[in-house]
Amino acid sequence: MSLFVMKFGGSSVGDTERMQRVARRVAQKQDEGHQCVVVVSAMGDTTDELIDQAKILNDKLPAREMDMLLTTGEQISIALLSMAIQSLGRETVSYTGWQAGFRTEPVHGKARITDIQPERVLRSLEEGKIVIVAGFQGISEEGEITTLGRGGSDTTAVALAAAIKADACEIYTDVDGVYSTDPRIVKVARKLSEISYDEMLELAHLGTAVLHPRAVEYAKHSKVPLVVRSSFTYNEGTVVKEEAALEQGVVVSGIAYDKNVARISILGVEDIPGVLAGMFGALAREQIDVDIIVQSGISDGKADFSFTVTLDDRERAIEVIQGMESILPFREITSEDGLVKISIVGAGMVSHPGVAAQMFEVISSQGVNIKMVSTSEIKVSCVVEGTKLNEVIRALHTAYKLDAEVQAFVGGPQDRR
Amino acid sequence: MSLFVMKFGGSSVGDTERMQRVARRVAQKQDEGHQCVVVVSAMGDTTDELIDQAKILNDKLPAREMDMLLTTGEQISIALLSMAIQSLGRETVSYTGWQAGFRTEPVHGKARITDIQPERVLRSLEEGKIVIVAGFQGISEEGEITTLGRGGSDTTAVALAAAIKADACEIYTDVDGVYSTDPRIVKVARKLSEISYDEMLELAHLGTAVLHPRAVEYAKHSKVPLVVRSSFTYNEGTVVKEEAALEQGVVVSGIAYDKNVARISILGVEDIPGVLAGMFGALAREQIDVDIIVQSGISDGKADFSFTVTLDDRERAIEVIQGMESILPFREITSEDGLVKISIVGAGMVSHPGVAAQMFEVISSQGVNIKMVSTSEIKVSCVVEGTKLNEVIRALHTAYKLDAEVQAFVGGPQDRR
Repeated sequence: MSLFVMKFGGSSVGDTERMQRVARRVAQKQDEGHQCVVVVSAMGDTTDELIDQAKILNDKLPAREMDMLLTTGEQISIALLSMAIQSLGRETVSYTGWQAGFRTEPVHGKARITDIQPERVLRSLEEGKIVIVAGFQGISEEGEITTLGRGGSDTTAVALAAAIKADACEIYTDVDGVYSTDPRIVKVARKLSEISYDEMLELAHLGTAVLHPRAVEYAKHSKVPLVVRSSFTYNEGTVVKEEAALEQGVVVSGIAYDKNVARISILGVEDIPGVLAGMFGALAREQIDVDIIVQSGISDGKADFSFTVTLDDRERAIEVIQGMESILPFREITSEDGLVKISIVGAGMVSHPGVAAQMFEVISSQGVNIKMVSTSEIKVSCVVEGTKLNEVIRALHTAYKLDAEVQAFVGGPQDRR
Repeated sequence: MSLFVMKFGGSSVGDTERMQRVARRVAQKQDEGHQCVVVVSAMGDTTDELIDQAKILNDKLPAREMDMLLTTGEQISIALLSMAIQSLGRETVSYTGWQAGFRTEPVHGKARITDIQPERVLRSLEEGKIVIVAGFQGISEEGEITTLGRGGSDTTAVALAAAIKADACEIYTDVDGVYSTDPRIVKVARKLSEISYDEMLELAHLGTAVLHPRAVEYAKHSKVPLVVRSSFTYNEGTVVKEEAALEQGVVVSGIAYDKNVARISILGVEDIPGVLAGMFGALAREQIDVDIIVQSGISDGKADFSFTVTLDDRERAIEVIQGMESILPFREITSEDGLVKISIVGAGMVSHPGVAAQMFEVISSQGVNIKMVSTSEIKVSCVVEGTKLNEVIRALHTAYKLDAEVQAFVGGPQDRR
């Protein structure tokens, strides 16, 4: 007998019919002789509908009251799913975040879990019950209802799996696993049977939406095996774990891309000590995430810098830099969009030199200019013009021997929360 | 500065527009220099919509999970109302039942409050905040979410008012007070400026839907003055308190009626000791509420009994009695519907003999037969044929000098929960 945490996102429980399908799936797992804890998100559009109502009443959407409001979404889901599973003749019990023992920081909208006290969950499991837990929510020491922010239900599932020492945490979504790249672009994208936490983390950070980075970090930290699989099919999913088996000759596991990229260039910056620290410190204080940073050389005691931010942050980032001109003088600031960041990820890269060089060559062979480069032990990212994205991805996919023999299954819109 | 608990029912917060009206009303109360705690029900049809979804998934509607489900309704209301009041520039905080300190029996669907620990509410009041509390809900000692059942939000408001020693508990509803009788029947029904707890209790039990009996009992016990008033107008409401001022010459305060009445008659019952106890004990065990009981005489060692139950309980009551025939033999069992129970209520009755006789006379003068009679210190009830209900009520209203000079304001459908 194994103990599984099964997480179902909002679109998997979008209506009562889907809820019944999830119920049957959970019951089946129990029939196979396993103990089950189910973590569930709010049903389909519930969260958006609640936000719409709130906007009418207070356009500032005060964070504490928004947590009070939005946590009802998951509470509705757990109650209904619990009833659905009970109607299949099983004993179940549903718990809100605070009932399941999720303690968090006293922060609203994006609290981090500080502690899990899973005694009630464990007791109910011992009683032979299927336990259904509300994702995305917890309670602060002061007894305030909090939410974990985006990707919260994934994090709930992983953290709970770690706390109760589950054998695995299964993330059910509307794709049937992690793919070597976006199957909408590359029809022969390959479903990965295994991938390491670190690779998954890079892919997650690079905009592959299957798992939230925070959940992967939690899984890595606590060594909980994750399984990403479809709630609509019975296909084997992708296992995310410490050390993934490397397929023969495959050094790159996946290719990701991110269109949400703007490049800002600051030209003719006075090359005095502390310039970089001052500039990027100011951006950090404004909560602007800077991704790739490149210093492109010094002439006449002046330096040129480029860095990338998300499209949303572009205007604010420029304002911050302009506001510092009296302290950090520069000649010119420019920005550019229509770009895309393409990344290759693979744990095998570290022992295979020339992987980056091959990437530059493939991109160039498509007649596409590389604007910025950034590398880590298991990743190479290039910021390029976005015009020939699909061609570049397809060429890289083939070059790194990722093409599968059959076409990928492509699900609906993905399940994020 | 006074401390008020203001309770708004589901139709008062039925949509965002009404929510905003309630918000302004609460802000106004604060502007008048008062501290405010607001108790609120689920918005309009929320509860029914949740029940409809639950029915699809599990027609047994398991009680624990139904409490988990339905308490989200009030949680949505408090969050939205809190945001609406904040947008008027006030500091507010919303609390669920368990956050506000409502401890209940470990029973689902109809728990009684065992204790209130209002420290968080009091602390927030001291901080100058308007406190918004979810009606209808609490928590058991085991940490289970419970609901108080029908009339629950009224009870929440009254119990909280008692616990925090509020100066009054205002129940905002869609009628502007307690009337001498149903204004839909008697256009010149009179709005009562004051009424005693005991009178209100009788009226509440007799089907006048403005306040739930449990809430009135709680108010009586804790001596919290209640005010019933409209959430749509600024008219003075009705004050419910220990001793209501008696108007000159008025012995009857109100006239109530109840159409939900069936009479069951058991004829030729063996007159052996314990017959009544056996019969009504069996009905009680089946949760059948028996209202009026009349033993109509003994001949040949056989007795005839009549009693009333609600229309819903009629069939079950007959089955229970028939099931006991071997132990409690009788000749015949019959039942009758199309009846109505009419009651006159007045604290002044006790010192004015002849009030009951006058009632019988008025009913007879309308050519209506009286089938059963029951009296208490402040009430006389008659079960009569339902055919001429309106004429009888109007005649009684005039006879007891209750007719007002102006027509009553009649609101929409009443707010029960």
